[in-house]
Amino acid sequence: MQLCSRRNWSRRALGLVGAIVVALSVAGCVGQSASDAKSPAVASATNAAAALPSWREGTAKKRIVKFVADVTREGSSTFVPPAERIAVFDNDGTLWSEQPLYFQFLFLLDQITAAAPNHPEWKGNPAYQAILKKDYGALASLQKPLMRLVAVANSGMTVDQYDKTIRNWLATTQHPTLKRPFTELVYQPQLELLAYLRANGFKTFIVSGGTIEFIRPWAETIYGIPPEQVIGSSQLVQYEIRDGHPALVRRPKIDFVNDGPGKPIGIYREIGRRPILAFGNSDGDLQMLQYTAAASGPHLALLVHHDDAVREFAYDRRSKVGKLDKAWDEAVTDGWAVVSMKDDWTTIYPLPRR
Amino acid sequence: MQLCSRRNWSRRALGLVGAIVVALSVAGCVGQSASDAKSPAVASATNAAAALPSWREGTAKKRIVKFVADVTREGSSTFVPPAERIAVFDNDGTLWSEQPLYFQFLFLLDQITAAAPNHPEWKGNPAYQAILKKDYGALASLQKPLMRLVAVANSGMTVDQYDKTIRNWLATTQHPTLKRPFTELVYQPQLELLAYLRANGFKTFIVSGGTIEFIRPWAETIYGIPPEQVIGSSQLVQYEIRDGHPALVRRPKIDFVNDGPGKPIGIYREIGRRPILAFGNSDGDLQMLQYTAAASGPHLALLVHHDDAVREFAYDRRSKVGKLDKAWDEAVTDGWAVVSMKDDWTTIYPLPRR
Repeated sequence: MQLCSRRNWSRRALGLVGAIVVALSVAGCVGQSASDAKSPAVASATNAAAALPSWREGTAKKRIVKFVADVTREGSSTFVPPAERIAVFDNDGTLWSEQPLYFQFLFLLDQITAAAPNHPEWKGNPAYQAILKKDYGALASLQKPLMRLVAVANSGMTVDQYDKTIRNWLATTQHPTLKRPFTELVYQPQLELLAYLRANGFKTFIVSGGTIEFIRPWAETIYGIPPEQVIGSSQLVQYEIRDGHPALVRRPKIDFVNDGPGKPIGIYREIGRRPILAFGNSDGDLQMLQYTAAASGPHLALLVHHDDAVREFAYDRRSKVGKLDKAWDEAVTDGWAVVSMKDDWTTIYPLPRR
Repeated sequence: MQLCSRRNWSRRALGLVGAIVVALSVAGCVGQSASDAKSPAVASATNAAAALPSWREGTAKKRIVKFVADVTREGSSTFVPPAERIAVFDNDGTLWSEQPLYFQFLFLLDQITAAAPNHPEWKGNPAYQAILKKDYGALASLQKPLMRLVAVANSGMTVDQYDKTIRNWLATTQHPTLKRPFTELVYQPQLELLAYLRANGFKTFIVSGGTIEFIRPWAETIYGIPPEQVIGSSQLVQYEIRDGHPALVRRPKIDFVNDGPGKPIGIYREIGRRPILAFGNSDGDLQMLQYTAAASGPHLALLVHHDDAVREFAYDRRSKVGKLDKAWDEAVTDGWAVVSMKDDWTTIYPLPRR
């Protein structure tokens, strides 16, 4: 599980009843349920141009459009029935930003800071020291001691209480440097791609190292992806009768780490079919991409390349957060599609909400 | 986890490309994807009569039809948006038969018998002794020693190899007394109910103590429920590169027991919304039913009562397999709907396949 170290318990943020919803993505959200497995519209260059306005003409867009046309062309050898059109997307760094630190980590740090007065024993914990110094680079390498703090700070409450805590944080917290709510820091071209895939009969899933609790409250509104299509890491919960009512209570133990080799396992457990399209951005997505690319039928593996220092952040290959090293090598060797944020995307974020 | 003892690793069988598909259930299967979250048709007594021909007019049917009418009536206080119309069904004893033993157990016994020559050390295992004597009653109480045999007999292979083993068994094995393929031993009234719910905007899930591997190969064809909507128990799998290809390999360890208190946990992890309708038949479904019945909004909890010794099997309250004791008491106290197989269903099984 060596590759697990970078994304566990990471990311996602925000806001719930948000209203990012640029016209196209609204269509996508509303269309999600209705179009998920509907008789697919056949993809054509024409509707792709209309559906993917934030994608520049180029190799990456051409490969996506060709792939969708191939799998939706009835009677062709590359046709894939709608039920098997499973598309999986990593979240942090693939659907929204992840710098200076996975947004879920920022939430967890706030939780730990708030709980600290009751835990003097944390003073010797190196992760707690890094939190006090806001040393995000160090934190990215201190996963285990950090998880010990997290497990304590976020346990004992019911899943409903935890859900409220997350929704409240997302609704009231801004990105430290970009000064926008986290759920506005999703990638507009990816919102368009999700909607385009669904309009072509795909069922879209998130497969994240972050926890299900942190993504589900806003994934349906923002991405058009319902809670049951969000696969992520999870903490152990226990069924109890509390005050006469059934309750699911969070226990201080990690249950499943849906990262690195955990991603194909999570896909197997919760989807039960091999995806035909997988989109990631880092080494935490390596095995999910390998697993998808190993299919005997049509498939497409894609990577977001973070090379836009002006509009987002330029990092990946050497970064502690969002490292893209082994997966980059494999993308080059195996011909996976690499999407340059700088060159392939005309826009990064949707317009701010009113 | 005391209630876990009866259904873990149990049930479901069969056959894959089956063709039970009576006209109505075909419509259900085809409609599954398309109608899952579509703008719902409003339920009316008229379409219910047409959609549920194997349900006798009576209290149980009336409650179902009223509930569906209530949650689909736009503008009413009982309206539930389509995305929240989650319906969960136990499998063994709720959607298909489970006597003389959960069908998955019958499969596992065959696996153990086949592997036995390589395992002389099993001779002292009480579950192995019960298998030799076909003592199903004893086996139902020997879960732990049985699981030790199962873990060994079914590990080491890839999930794809295991899938083939199951499909082959289901395609070639008949029920010991009814002499029909297991996937023909599904309940016709429930096929109609699943299709009726989907036609009214519900998303239907299986939530079973049986394993995902044993249900997924045929649930889509027979029930109209795709693999990603099958929640069940699971064995640990590991990601490996085997002969140069990514593979998921089964490890000799149980990963998750989706039974008893495990059912609401499985629902939380994989659906992330509280169901508004839950259908079970035994104490293994107690917590799932409690959890559903505790919702503040509209909800319906139902139990199949196995009281038809002529057309199926009369058991439940005192049975080792499919015991309905605590959940029966709670159904009486809390007014859950109890469905009598003898009185409420005009038909039990679909017509045999050609």
